[in-house]
Amino acid sequence: MVDIATRVYNHKWKIDPIVRSLIDTDFYKLLMCQSIFRNRPHTRVTFSLINRSTHVPLAELVDEGELREQLDHIRSLSLSPGESTWLRGNMFYGKRQMFRPDFMEWFENLRLPPYHLERRGDQYHLSFEGSWAEVTLWEIPALAVLMELRSRAVLNRMDRFELQVLYARAMTKLWEKVERLRGIEGLNLADFGTRRRHSFLWQDWCVQALREGLGAAFVGTSNCKIAKDREMEAIGTNAHELPMIYAALADSDAELARAPYDVLSDWHEEHDGNLRVILPDTYGTKEFLDKAPDWLASWTGIRVDSGDPVKGAELAIEWWKSRGEDPRKKLVIFSDGLEVDNIIALHRRFAHRVRPSFGWGTLLTNDFRSLVPGDALAPFSLVCKAVSADGRPTVKLSDNPEKAMGPRDEIARYKRVFGIGEQERIPVTV
Amino acid sequence: MVDIATRVYNHKWKIDPIVRSLIDTDFYKLLMCQSIFRNRPHTRVTFSLINRSTHVPLAELVDEGELREQLDHIRSLSLSPGESTWLRGNMFYGKRQMFRPDFMEWFENLRLPPYHLERRGDQYHLSFEGSWAEVTLWEIPALAVLMELRSRAVLNRMDRFELQVLYARAMTKLWEKVERLRGIEGLNLADFGTRRRHSFLWQDWCVQALREGLGAAFVGTSNCKIAKDREMEAIGTNAHELPMIYAALADSDAELARAPYDVLSDWHEEHDGNLRVILPDTYGTKEFLDKAPDWLASWTGIRVDSGDPVKGAELAIEWWKSRGEDPRKKLVIFSDGLEVDNIIALHRRFAHRVRPSFGWGTLLTNDFRSLVPGDALAPFSLVCKAVSADGRPTVKLSDNPEKAMGPRDEIARYKRVFGIGEQERIPVTV
Repeated sequence: MVDIATRVYNHKWKIDPIVRSLIDTDFYKLLMCQSIFRNRPHTRVTFSLINRSTHVPLAELVDEGELREQLDHIRSLSLSPGESTWLRGNMFYGKRQMFRPDFMEWFENLRLPPYHLERRGDQYHLSFEGSWAEVTLWEIPALAVLMELRSRAVLNRMDRFELQVLYARAMTKLWEKVERLRGIEGLNLADFGTRRRHSFLWQDWCVQALREGLGAAFVGTSNCKIAKDREMEAIGTNAHELPMIYAALADSDAELARAPYDVLSDWHEEHDGNLRVILPDTYGTKEFLDKAPDWLASWTGIRVDSGDPVKGAELAIEWWKSRGEDPRKKLVIFSDGLEVDNIIALHRRFAHRVRPSFGWGTLLTNDFRSLVPGDALAPFSLVCKAVSADGRPTVKLSDNPEKAMGPRDEIARYKRVFGIGEQERIPVTV
Repeated sequence: MVDIATRVYNHKWKIDPIVRSLIDTDFYKLLMCQSIFRNRPHTRVTFSLINRSTHVPLAELVDEGELREQLDHIRSLSLSPGESTWLRGNMFYGKRQMFRPDFMEWFENLRLPPYHLERRGDQYHLSFEGSWAEVTLWEIPALAVLMELRSRAVLNRMDRFELQVLYARAMTKLWEKVERLRGIEGLNLADFGTRRRHSFLWQDWCVQALREGLGAAFVGTSNCKIAKDREMEAIGTNAHELPMIYAALADSDAELARAPYDVLSDWHEEHDGNLRVILPDTYGTKEFLDKAPDWLASWTGIRVDSGDPVKGAELAIEWWKSRGEDPRKKLVIFSDGLEVDNIIALHRRFAHRVRPSFGWGTLLTNDFRSLVPGDALAPFSLVCKAVSADGRPTVKLSDNPEKAMGPRDEIARYKRVFGIGEQERIPVTV
């Protein structure tokens, strides 16, 4: 018995949309969007796609017409009534009405702004310009579209059976990770893998695998759509774009030096509890912590997102102690380049000294390494970053100079203002 | 969009039938059935289930009510018009109308005879009595039902997600075997795994995996339903039950000594080409070949089904040479306890000396070893054999005394009549 209606329905799509909802994005983008909407409603920004893995010739793999169709489809999306109800009515981090009525009303009427797409050599130049609160919402869907179109380009050459075996292998691979992680006393782990996922359906499967295999040790997903559909916690706090744009807008060196703290001061007024998590590495973790105001030491935790994670966490522990805080009550969220080995090692090292937590990204939702010839499905390092604000370039230093971005003279100026010396270089793979 | 009709249809089944067709059986059963129908229409036999793996407590694992429902369902089956058309019209081994009109008419009206089921301790005693041509058709479905009910007993305790991971692992495992086998020059391999399969759907998947992965090296399946549905070759010739029952019916030692050759004499009249395959081990391969009439040496090949397969094939090669035949033109079908390692080793050893072929059974369609705790899905050695014919016990000696069956005094008599001395014991696992 064939369901003719379903078949016709499935066949009438011109494209198979990758991003089908405005909340198929990371939770922290919505938190930051609301903060921007309130505090910087008039700031205009440019976000740009940057493929750090130049050996992956995106423009050769991905058809420009298909890319445009996917991006155009995202521009056609608006918040559905059910999505709006979920955002308005759901409890996030133990708190209801996290998203306020004026923000929700604006969000319900939002369409994403235009994009600029150009092929240069074997890469695409993709950028977004406009109001910060709008443009910021392009980051995750743009990355997800490019990652999945690249997956599809490889998958299109495989037949039905090879595909089945491919996914059987990927499932087996993930489940072996789950089995290594299960039973680790006190583990706290979340999915942070939306932006570099192999595909939406695969991320959704991975999240279910973690819930099934890890039980309470799996604390939730950063993806709002999956959190909503699967009735899980949506996880996330804030990201580098806040201090980067606040810094770019600074009119003097003194203002620049203050910018990263101004960001957290605004955040302090808006959020409490587990949402008060410091992201200290934008302009050097050590320098940031040394000069931080005392009220920041009372925050719930810190996120370690670049550099040697052991050093980052040790720095935070020393800093809390120096400010009279008990590190054992503090959250330390590791979110950079995680895989089972370093999750286990970091957990072992810090479990009794702080409250460690893990935001597992690319190697959770896109570990197709060595599953196809030529490793054509291996994940790669694609980012979409704020590159300018109100006409001024942004700068990121990070704890790893391989992750630094911005014009060379501006990087020099930021290093001087923030007092950054030599930094250890660590290769960036994913 | 839910297809309500399909859902209602799926839910109205009282049971989920394991065997849904009378041709969900091995092709050689149908070939032998026709031969029995023609040559021994009045012979009455008893077939019995024997669980050689007594550590598997079938009666504790499998509910008696469910077993009866499955067996009753098989008794409700009859040949469908499409199945009949396929048997009548299909080309088997390059020949049309393999199944003659009188046999087909009989088959179309057939329902399987009653069964006798009794629980004794932690095992079931399951037997079938009646006309040979009818009872013989119980063997494969009875085994498939018990194997799959045992699988289901284990699977019923697993949730949806564990099941998905289980099958992902099993698929990965099989595909690794396929990858080891592909590219072996001149490989010929068929599925012989119906009787001990994990489940019908899994066998169907395995067969597709072999076709997809091995291409022309995969020559077909013994399962008629899968051969029909997937448009493949149905593979098989004859089995031990023929000489066992012919032997049991012998009225004197002289007749007994002649019985295995009488079987092949009847077969010789009915079939030619690739269907002329000797199964020599019922009462000892060496003794059978030594005393064989010359016309047998002209047959296409031999099947090696017990004992050391290297010895069995070497014996056949020597025998052909001694009868003036060229072994390089002969088919040698290995069908006992195959797994990738011995398939590769046997192929390597015999590829340039004979035409080797492999009938891969249990470890193709039921290799769930080490995939669940306690290895509760590992395959085990279940058989369903003719134990008597017209009131006389049957005997099998085989090339491995671990596989011998029959009353002790009859085994002694057969050994004397066939001139069998010491035999090497080889453990039977699957």
